[in-house]
Amino acid sequence: MGKVATREALRFMTDCLKAAGASAKAAEQQADLLLQADRMGHPSHGLNRLELYVNDILTGACTPNNEPKILKETPSTAWVDANNVLGATASHFGMNIAIKKAKETGVGWVTVKGSNHYGMAGYWGKKAADNSLIGMAYTNTSPLLAPTRSKKAALGTNPLAVVAPALDGESFYLDMATTAVAVGKIEMQMRKGEPLPSGWAQGPDGTETNDATLAFNTGCLMPLGGGEHTSGYKGYGLAAMVELFCGILSGSNYGHHIRSWSHTGKGGPANLGHCFVALDPECFAPGFADRLTDCIQHWRNLEPADPKTPVMAPGDKEKRAAKATDERGTVSYVKQQIETSAAMAERLKVTPMDVKLD
Amino acid sequence: MGKVATREALRFMTDCLKAAGASAKAAEQQADLLLQADRMGHPSHGLNRLELYVNDILTGACTPNNEPKILKETPSTAWVDANNVLGATASHFGMNIAIKKAKETGVGWVTVKGSNHYGMAGYWGKKAADNSLIGMAYTNTSPLLAPTRSKKAALGTNPLAVVAPALDGESFYLDMATTAVAVGKIEMQMRKGEPLPSGWAQGPDGTETNDATLAFNTGCLMPLGGGEHTSGYKGYGLAAMVELFCGILSGSNYGHHIRSWSHTGKGGPANLGHCFVALDPECFAPGFADRLTDCIQHWRNLEPADPKTPVMAPGDKEKRAAKATDERGTVSYVKQQIETSAAMAERLKVTPMDVKLD
Repeated sequence: MGKVATREALRFMTDCLKAAGASAKAAEQQADLLLQADRMGHPSHGLNRLELYVNDILTGACTPNNEPKILKETPSTAWVDANNVLGATASHFGMNIAIKKAKETGVGWVTVKGSNHYGMAGYWGKKAADNSLIGMAYTNTSPLLAPTRSKKAALGTNPLAVVAPALDGESFYLDMATTAVAVGKIEMQMRKGEPLPSGWAQGPDGTETNDATLAFNTGCLMPLGGGEHTSGYKGYGLAAMVELFCGILSGSNYGHHIRSWSHTGKGGPANLGHCFVALDPECFAPGFADRLTDCIQHWRNLEPADPKTPVMAPGDKEKRAAKATDERGTVSYVKQQIETSAAMAERLKVTPMDVKLD
Repeated sequence: MGKVATREALRFMTDCLKAAGASAKAAEQQADLLLQADRMGHPSHGLNRLELYVNDILTGACTPNNEPKILKETPSTAWVDANNVLGATASHFGMNIAIKKAKETGVGWVTVKGSNHYGMAGYWGKKAADNSLIGMAYTNTSPLLAPTRSKKAALGTNPLAVVAPALDGESFYLDMATTAVAVGKIEMQMRKGEPLPSGWAQGPDGTETNDATLAFNTGCLMPLGGGEHTSGYKGYGLAAMVELFCGILSGSNYGHHIRSWSHTGKGGPANLGHCFVALDPECFAPGFADRLTDCIQHWRNLEPADPKTPVMAPGDKEKRAAKATDERGTVSYVKQQIETSAAMAERLKVTPMDVKLD
């Protein structure tokens, strides 16, 4: 493991994206999105993804300096063509419109086509919550989820996020993939040489497997809920709902038409779809933040089955990770990420990241 | 088992609700809501619930002939006080507003307080889909779901529904509780003397149990996803999200403040919260119904792991049940329901339901 000052990690990621060809603003926004994932304890969506974005720019699969535009709008909705910019640029554009419309009419519902991976979904929900609104963010992704009973994947991990402001800087923060787990968790079990719990992934014959290597090579995740007897069809339904809001509404690529997952930029523009919703709680009953805070506190104070593992409110894990990062002032990266970053620095002729090895 | 002509079942449920004191319109709307659940293969939400509604009226816990009213509105939102009417009356009122606003501004987002059980969530999503809109419906319910790590329940089964119109009368139809399973499924295992699959329910010590009787007596369901190692905290987060949209936004009772589940009308008005959203797909990319139909067909045609169990699109199970009901012209009820209905006919002095016993 190596430690990197958070500012230095941000500097490095910004420099790489600029060197690849992104404007300063686009690079800074994308780098902040990645840094926040590292800060909040979701390293899969942080520096780990930088190579994907850089390669997408270098191969021309992503054109970061285009301008997104509104194709159609009503007082409460907008349909946006991201015009193949970086996910962060597209998402700031989309969520800004949702926020503006929510302030005017109570709700803003925006769908975006022609976009690229938008990173950690919660980042976009939080953007609305920072404006005293409830924020929702959805995105489609490359096929990895096998619908219940299917041998093959036909939907993405299709995450959703809902973030809402409570009192005293507290918030409700839900950011979840609609698969049982992410591919990264299967990779981790494989490296540790440990079997998978039931309900995570399928083998090539379409049945559940506990063999981590087989699961990793098959690349076919089970939906949230696992098998049919534990209601995995609900997770499948939720993944399909996210696709309905993203690709099916926006006219981007969708479901089985999305390119395979790749870090190399192969396969041309991803043309992903997102959906951003902002809702003003002031339009409903007074006391929203009080009731939300009451719930958050009640959940945290519930008697746990095991006193060593207290009950958490949605988002507590992320908030603790962010607090710890801020106290340390550093983010930590595994050896492989540090090596990949050093190679990228050389390839892009940017100042290497200043890493303190443990 | 006994068979009842669907019209006769509707007549009987309407008569009972009228005899209890509901107006003809309120009784008809509530009875149709129950009949559709029986028709679509969700008997737990059909005739099975009639006693609950009748008792709520007779004890004064529900006042069916009040008028719901709008407390606050913007071009795209409304906050409604259901004024303690039946769930069907409150939900028609709420979803009608959402539909009207969606036709005007693209979106209608309505929250309702002071309501009662609104039956099968999909019924309300479908109401919007029948108007060429995407319909979403959420409701809070009495505490039954234990947040991950908690010994006790603190949220309801909090269902959500999303329904969207496709081509040729097809639709996307998702209606799901955010618990792994409903209490009824545990009861069924108990009656069969069979153990529970993992991830369904907890015992009194807060750990997962496979003992159906213990689980039934404890009344503490696990969220969709089951235990923490299979991401049950996502199901917990979804149940909390539904509460955010319902009780926390509308100012009704919420979460741990909701009365315990009861068929006796004890505990006074339920003061439940609902949320209805309607969204006009015409505000986004042309071709919505084509893309949705493409997905539905793709999912159905996926190669299944077991050729005997083909892959289904969300809602296919309900549509098949409805088709079979319509072809038979009858709904089927178990012995206990028939006996309860006969007793209710006598108690309320209404013509007993005409049942053909098998």
